[in-house]
Amino acid sequence: MNSHLYVISPSGAVRDKAALKRGVRYLEGLGLQVEVDSGALSSHMRFAGDDASRLAALDRAIVCGADWVMLSRGGYGLTRLLQQIPFKRMAKAVARGTQFMGFSDFTSVQMALLAQTGACTWAGPSVVEGFGTVDGPDDVMESCFIDVLNHRFEGTGWLQPLEKLPSGMRHEQFHTKWLGADAAFDLKDGLVWGGNLSVLCSLVGTPYFPRVEGGILFLEDVGEHPYRVERLLTQLLHAGVLAKQQAIVMGQFSDYRLTPHDRGYNLKTATNWLRSQLKVPVVSGLPFGHVPRKVLLPVGRLADLVVQGREVLLLWGDDVE
Amino acid sequence: MNSHLYVISPSGAVRDKAALKRGVRYLEGLGLQVEVDSGALSSHMRFAGDDASRLAALDRAIVCGADWVMLSRGGYGLTRLLQQIPFKRMAKAVARGTQFMGFSDFTSVQMALLAQTGACTWAGPSVVEGFGTVDGPDDVMESCFIDVLNHRFEGTGWLQPLEKLPSGMRHEQFHTKWLGADAAFDLKDGLVWGGNLSVLCSLVGTPYFPRVEGGILFLEDVGEHPYRVERLLTQLLHAGVLAKQQAIVMGQFSDYRLTPHDRGYNLKTATNWLRSQLKVPVVSGLPFGHVPRKVLLPVGRLADLVVQGREVLLLWGDDVE
Repeated sequence: MNSHLYVISPSGAVRDKAALKRGVRYLEGLGLQVEVDSGALSSHMRFAGDDASRLAALDRAIVCGADWVMLSRGGYGLTRLLQQIPFKRMAKAVARGTQFMGFSDFTSVQMALLAQTGACTWAGPSVVEGFGTVDGPDDVMESCFIDVLNHRFEGTGWLQPLEKLPSGMRHEQFHTKWLGADAAFDLKDGLVWGGNLSVLCSLVGTPYFPRVEGGILFLEDVGEHPYRVERLLTQLLHAGVLAKQQAIVMGQFSDYRLTPHDRGYNLKTATNWLRSQLKVPVVSGLPFGHVPRKVLLPVGRLADLVVQGREVLLLWGDDVE
Repeated sequence: MNSHLYVISPSGAVRDKAALKRGVRYLEGLGLQVEVDSGALSSHMRFAGDDASRLAALDRAIVCGADWVMLSRGGYGLTRLLQQIPFKRMAKAVARGTQFMGFSDFTSVQMALLAQTGACTWAGPSVVEGFGTVDGPDDVMESCFIDVLNHRFEGTGWLQPLEKLPSGMRHEQFHTKWLGADAAFDLKDGLVWGGNLSVLCSLVGTPYFPRVEGGILFLEDVGEHPYRVERLLTQLLHAGVLAKQQAIVMGQFSDYRLTPHDRGYNLKTATNWLRSQLKVPVVSGLPFGHVPRKVLLPVGRLADLVVQGREVLLLWGDDVE
């Protein structure tokens, strides 16, 4: 494919330089011409350089003319830069053919870019966590990634996890909304948006939160106890965001720890509580989040969501290009 | 004083029943007639009863006619009830002389009540963490509490922690905004509001977030790494909330753990970054939060904030009653 891929570090400092090198080599092995930004290994406290340096790195990515911009890694550092990121220039770079890919902390830039310009990005891996592991990338993620690079990635599908009936609910009540085996619906032309739930919620009330109606909102998070996930979902609920969507799609919520105090309260409790408050369907099991096996998702593009029992298809059709 | 104090559990389940008993005894020892709500020891998963039970407990508190309503403990459970809490009836109870006191999870109710009715509450201890410890309450907190009960609590004062100059800042730049030794100002009639930063931010964009201008916003949190505190502060900054206040008052941020990855990044870094983004003064050191030594604060009342170098006074004058 011989695409040009540019790697920047706008968030946390890269401590595991060997992993970045492994990731770059892996990407080169896929036929990519990989260029690592001059500041990619900078470090300032927990950040990959001070604010000015990280903004300069973003700027170099905007003007680099590469086909792809990927992040070395996530972490924290982008929300505090939002007032200074030139989103219009970034959108022009996207229009000229530079596609940005990332997740986690990068959710803030993806959402702000969408809110302020409507420009599209890819929700997908960073170099270190996606390609820099000793064992190499997950095969599903890699396959999605290669399809995206080749502009032949038109959709993705997954199985929802088997769910027990919520306590007290009779089988005939376990209808479409709860997405039981009989659920079947086909939603058309929903704008795909979302990402990391904590980062997304940290944008509510700011000019960086997209005003999407009829969208397909996907969410993931890491290290957040289900009660915190529920509190964040409740914010989106009370802000009127969820009811305006066609569907909420729950990705992977990983690396949290339940305690004896929870007494059976868990992520499913939180998800089912959300379902009890919403008419909009809440689909689960999307392979996306802080896990090796994740699909890539076109943020800002229109897609159809087809649900047939446990089977889910998210289809965005032909590549824009 | 022989006031009537009513104790409810609208948030997390009380696991340490002995601590609740100790707290109640201590309060009785202060001369209070303490009534513990019938549902105070209920348990449903991690909550002190299911949603309907906790709402019923809040309702019993609203109609109980007591002088004071306190919470057995905090935890999590109120944000998800906000759509069903009768804030107007709660405000009427306040007008009839029932004063509500709490913090942490209760911040959500205090803010929603303020947003929807303007009614005042007290930011102060819960029974278990404030009075149920084996060693008994902190003396400063107890003294504030007794003054509040006796309607003779007219203000509070504290010393800001000594601060080093932020790196790169010359001494003459360390002016009022940075609250150095020469800082001196006197802010008038600011509405006191705030509480737990995470809970407060979970209300941004919802009908439960107060629209306060010219206020004195106090903040505390527990178990949140400074980068998360910074992300939450950044949300308030980008939402335009902070610039509208007369002052931001940082309380105690406790029980978080820095890591080697932080490389010198800490709570002071986050606070100073906030200062660099704001013209509004950011005062620090307020003894309030998830710590034994905390003052009580009148949420929704007007106060003056007097700063003279490290010395800070927050004065709200005569009790309304």
